[in-house]
Amino acid sequence: MAAKMTAPELMDFLETVFPQVKDDFEIEEIDDMQVRVRMKIAERHLRPGGTVSGPSMFALADCAVYMAVLAMIGPQALAVTTNCSMDFMRKPAAETDLIADCRLLKLGRVLAVGDVLIYSEGVAAPVARASMTYSIPPR
Amino acid sequence: MAAKMTAPELMDFLETVFPQVKDDFEIEEIDDMQVRVRMKIAERHLRPGGTVSGPSMFALADCAVYMAVLAMIGPQALAVTTNCSMDFMRKPAAETDLIADCRLLKLGRVLAVGDVLIYSEGVAAPVARASMTYSIPPR
Amino acid sequence: MAAKMTAPELMDFLETVFPQVKDDFEIEEIDDMQVRVRMKIAERHLRPGGTVSGPSMFALADCAVYMAVLAMIGPQALAVTTNCSMDFMRKPAAETDLIADCRLLKLGRVLAVGDVLIYSEGVAAPVARASMTYSIPPR
Amino acid sequence: MAAKMTAPELMDFLETVFPQVKDDFEIEEIDDMQVRVRMKIAERHLRPGGTVSGPSMFALADCAVYMAVLAMIGPQALAVTTNCSMDFMRKPAAETDLIADCRLLKLGRVLAVGDVLIYSEGVAAPVARASMTYSIPPR
Repeated sequence: MAAKMTAPELMDFLETVFPQVKDDFEIEEIDDMQVRVRMKIAERHLRPGGTVSGPSMFALADCAVYMAVLAMIGPQALAVTTNCSMDFMRKPAAETDLIADCRLLKLGRVLAVGDVLIYSEGVAAPVARASMTYSIPPR
Repeated sequence: MAAKMTAPELMDFLETVFPQVKDDFEIEEIDDMQVRVRMKIAERHLRPGGTVSGPSMFALADCAVYMAVLAMIGPQALAVTTNCSMDFMRKPAAETDLIADCRLLKLGRVLAVGDVLIYSEGVAAPVARASMTYSIPPR
Repeated sequence: MAAKMTAPELMDFLETVFPQVKDDFEIEEIDDMQVRVRMKIAERHLRPGGTVSGPSMFALADCAVYMAVLAMIGPQALAVTTNCSMDFMRKPAAETDLIADCRLLKLGRVLAVGDVLIYSEGVAAPVARASMTYSIPPR
Repeated sequence: MAAKMTAPELMDFLETVFPQVKDDFEIEEIDDMQVRVRMKIAERHLRPGGTVSGPSMFALADCAVYMAVLAMIGPQALAVTTNCSMDFMRKPAAETDLIADCRLLKLGRVLAVGDVLIYSEGVAAPVARASMTYSIPPR
């Protein structure tokens, strides 16, 4: 099963449905059932001390799985997150972009499950792990 | 075991360590091992269509558990989230404040676990459920 | 919305589809969107030292949510667990029955979400917390 | 960081602390921060229809992370599971051994986090995904 959308097509679609996505995220790579997404860290993502906030990491994981699902099924704004689990394992490097590596483990008729590892760019040990379930509306 | 901080004391402390908290959250009630927190919904919390975003709900759940922990152990900025699981069950009402009801289920020497139900104000069925684990630094 | 099955009806149904259930579980109470289930602790549920094993607590949480769903929708063997999150907070009391208090937080057309607190009988602080999502097959 | 225990050493240790492990599990491979574990499926792991039960898959994931932690830190019976999240994505193949691939994502002073993918032997798509947190007692 190959991706149905290229990175530019996906970003164009996301900008029409979630305009804020463009400022925060960049697709580094799309492949069969996987995407790599960069979070362009700015002041609004930081906690005092310069570390990236939990809600920003949640947003990155959520967006990465959404992008991976859309890349495979084509532009459908209505997929929604139904479940998330995250482990926050290390403090992100200060003022450094985050990179999310997402694999879809399941792409069913009604549910998709994606797994995400989040890294501070240039650091080998992951800062967080996430799993997200998306509910896909009937077509 | 009774709360060690009142709502105003807790808000004062949070404003010094997380200045953005004041704009987003209000403590409705503090009790033994539980807090009720209001998220004052503004444009920045919304998705197109007026519904509250996932990262905003994560931020509310995370903050509610943090507040419940601090209320019990006193002002300690260094407690960090290590794990989170959330179920997103219903679409929040458009442009309506969210209310988080948080209970601490465990307050150990090194780990605290809190359970959160999130409601759109005035609506009986919860929009989301969250569990958060905080790691508490040695005193 | 009221329960469609009584405790004896539900146990009878479960025995035909999961014969082992009868040895392990007893329904203490069924109500609108909630059940209380007893796990009759026996040798096979224990770890060395007499404490209840993790898989046994998982089985109890899973079964409690399944029972709560069936009580509401009627006998349907095909609902399946799609997601689970658990926090193990305290060591269960040795050789003591466990009691699971389960509330359904959502009972949708395709997904049901239940929340469970597990106690050692007679002990106030919960030993574990669980959330389970069930996928309900189209009728 | 290299593993401190070989597969036979680890199995010998586990048999003294959890005698039932020997009947259910076999270590296929131990490496730096990762293990592969086989669950030898028997009647007691099955649901009617021949598919492996949820509690059995939980037991496999839990045991795989425990083994991965012990392999790295040496024989310490007292590490305990504090959190688990699982996604059940596909029905396991009937009466087929399960293989768990576990990676430790974090091995800290007090907490370890492991990620597990579970497969029916010989089938490419995973049946389940799990993350487990272990609390490691002070040495």
